[in-house]
Amino acid sequence: MLTASILTIGDEILIGQIVDSNKSYISGLLNLIGVKVISHQSTGDDEFTIESSIVKLLKESDIIIVTGGLGPTKDDITKKVLGKISGSNDFKLDKKQLEIIKAICLKRGIELSSLNKDQALVPEKCTVLENTQGTAPGMMFEINGRLLFSLPGVPYEMQYLMKEVLNKISSLRQTETIFHKTINTFGIPESELATKISAWEDSLPFNYKLAYLPNPARGVKLRLSVYQGVDNCTPDKVKQLFTQLYSIIGDSIYGEEEETLESVVFQSLTKRGETLSIAESCTGGEISSIFTTLPGVSSVFKGGVVAYDNKAKINILGVSKSIIEESGAVSEECVVAMAEGAKRLFGTDWAIATSGIAGPSGGSEEKPVGTLWVAISGPGITTTNKAIFSGDRERNIIRFSSASINLLRKALQNL
Amino acid sequence: MLTASILTIGDEILIGQIVDSNKSYISGLLNLIGVKVISHQSTGDDEFTIESSIVKLLKESDIIIVTGGLGPTKDDITKKVLGKISGSNDFKLDKKQLEIIKAICLKRGIELSSLNKDQALVPEKCTVLENTQGTAPGMMFEINGRLLFSLPGVPYEMQYLMKEVLNKISSLRQTETIFHKTINTFGIPESELATKISAWEDSLPFNYKLAYLPNPARGVKLRLSVYQGVDNCTPDKVKQLFTQLYSIIGDSIYGEEEETLESVVFQSLTKRGETLSIAESCTGGEISSIFTTLPGVSSVFKGGVVAYDNKAKINILGVSKSIIEESGAVSEECVVAMAEGAKRLFGTDWAIATSGIAGPSGGSEEKPVGTLWVAISGPGITTTNKAIFSGDRERNIIRFSSASINLLRKALQNL
Repeated sequence: MLTASILTIGDEILIGQIVDSNKSYISGLLNLIGVKVISHQSTGDDEFTIESSIVKLLKESDIIIVTGGLGPTKDDITKKVLGKISGSNDFKLDKKQLEIIKAICLKRGIELSSLNKDQALVPEKCTVLENTQGTAPGMMFEINGRLLFSLPGVPYEMQYLMKEVLNKISSLRQTETIFHKTINTFGIPESELATKISAWEDSLPFNYKLAYLPNPARGVKLRLSVYQGVDNCTPDKVKQLFTQLYSIIGDSIYGEEEETLESVVFQSLTKRGETLSIAESCTGGEISSIFTTLPGVSSVFKGGVVAYDNKAKINILGVSKSIIEESGAVSEECVVAMAEGAKRLFGTDWAIATSGIAGPSGGSEEKPVGTLWVAISGPGITTTNKAIFSGDRERNIIRFSSASINLLRKALQNL
Repeated sequence: MLTASILTIGDEILIGQIVDSNKSYISGLLNLIGVKVISHQSTGDDEFTIESSIVKLLKESDIIIVTGGLGPTKDDITKKVLGKISGSNDFKLDKKQLEIIKAICLKRGIELSSLNKDQALVPEKCTVLENTQGTAPGMMFEINGRLLFSLPGVPYEMQYLMKEVLNKISSLRQTETIFHKTINTFGIPESELATKISAWEDSLPFNYKLAYLPNPARGVKLRLSVYQGVDNCTPDKVKQLFTQLYSIIGDSIYGEEEETLESVVFQSLTKRGETLSIAESCTGGEISSIFTTLPGVSSVFKGGVVAYDNKAKINILGVSKSIIEESGAVSEECVVAMAEGAKRLFGTDWAIATSGIAGPSGGSEEKPVGTLWVAISGPGITTTNKAIFSGDRERNIIRFSSASINLLRKALQNL
């Protein structure tokens, strides 16, 4: 089995200024193509340490992926080190990357500085992985049979280049065939899910492995991986296993692979030719912005009101003053009225409305911090839900939003 | 200067199942007491690798902090390795931790298993750091003049024990003071910033180090760190350096340390006793949700309209039909009308309005994907800006949002 190590470079990592998520992202992708990650390391912007770390990793792993240290400014010394390690201190100009750099500068309306131009200079012995997302190119070196990749540390640039890294690894090395399938659940805690499917899990063949991937905002994903001996991994076998899983877990499964709660809702509304609007109090625009990330969503999503102030609930959404006075803004009556108001205002078939207490203050004994009321109003349908979460403000808002979208997802799924 | 390395243990880290935030947390705390973190490493739950990693780190660093590998099913490995490295394979029972374990089991209503009891067994040569937050105790070893700490990997248990770790380090070793200061800029690309301040940067004393921390949504942070020889790091010297920096960079500096564009706007509006509403088209609720993450923001932020559909711009925000027909929704006229509409609707002093093309489709030659129009309307002030960004949909939305908040920040700063 191919092994890999990941080295991330940056003083900002070592002083704890950022949480380095690149290693996790890269590891997940390598795992999917059957490469075993055996170590993660981070080092500062220091020439000697970078060099000795890479030299050591080249002895231990088949593949080394380095991120960071490629910006145009003075703390970037990675390219110099990479040249030395690859056996040539000469640099070459990558014309394609230079064209990209020029285009980026032109588009941003900034002058092409010599610092920018220098980004297209790379060590002679590298294969360039052109980076259309930024000025610093990715680089690949073959050193003593090892593959060494250098990528920018900016997450979206690294993520863009990782596609090419995976292609290179797959074409230059023999990777093992592994089968993966992921199903996505929402609304069941991990431990409850584990108990529910434990008999099913125990019945899996030895080379089938189940991983639980919990995410506070996205629920728990279950990833089934089949390692080696793939001859027992027939489409029928897999289909049968998943049919069982669906019948055990039920409608807490909202999708598969990269599907999200919002993409499933978008698909479903598109199929039905129906539209959506959103009235948000405690979620403050988060649900609207989640839907807005979906390309083409304007065919379904017509808009929303962030009615943060009670006056906005009354004046814009038409919630009656008596509801606010008698039941309060965080109440079933209020969210139903907000949802109906949004439907009217935007002329949509469906609406989501939220009102709750994200914290840190504003809670009471009856309505503690973390309380959420959500209403879904659709054609002839109104459904509401109350839930209490226990996070800080930011996490509560994210959980409120996911729970609200999930309520619409369930309403649509059960039609 | 004291140096430290951090080693986190766990298969879940190496397969990318979790983003390991422990290293960042620990690094930040060590940094504050003047300990220089020189490396981060992660390894799987494998005896040989754990041992060789710790042995290597003991040669390189004054302080080694290990997290993870102490759960009731895994502790055989890590504790065995730690015992071996410390020179004794014998174990002792820590009575205080046993009492804690008993109390935890009682509280959770579970029986005290032998697995739980064994958690109180620790290598003979360690000093126990009692862990009231969980069953696994922290441990400290003094080996060849180095301090080796072992902590549980569960973040809140690790965080609890880090207080004691810092106490131990401060009482057993002479720590050095390091000075850090960060200033936050927005709207100048990293390379342009570097050119602008290169003379200033070159004039820094040898033990002053400047780091560029770029973030597409947050602009570029500049962090000045002063290492060793701190006698040339007087308040006057630092003040003078930053005064120079402010005069070179000007109003692209929006704040210092943890300040954000939105927190600066919030502070400024709070001081002025003024309020804000937001009318969003292309940003789809993102700007509202950014402001909503700020605790207590309801005193300033009254709400927003996500006018994704042109009908919503006309019917809710009162944009005249002729503006949409003649100039289009992505135009200066439209965003100004949207901002004025939001001010009217929510009765606020200020409003931000956005309209643009986030992509991937919807662009034209005249208005390509990435085009943003933003308007700020305030008491007697209207200011607008057009910008063109070159990201994918998600990044465009984030950049649109930051650029819009920045325009309000500048308007307020220049009043």
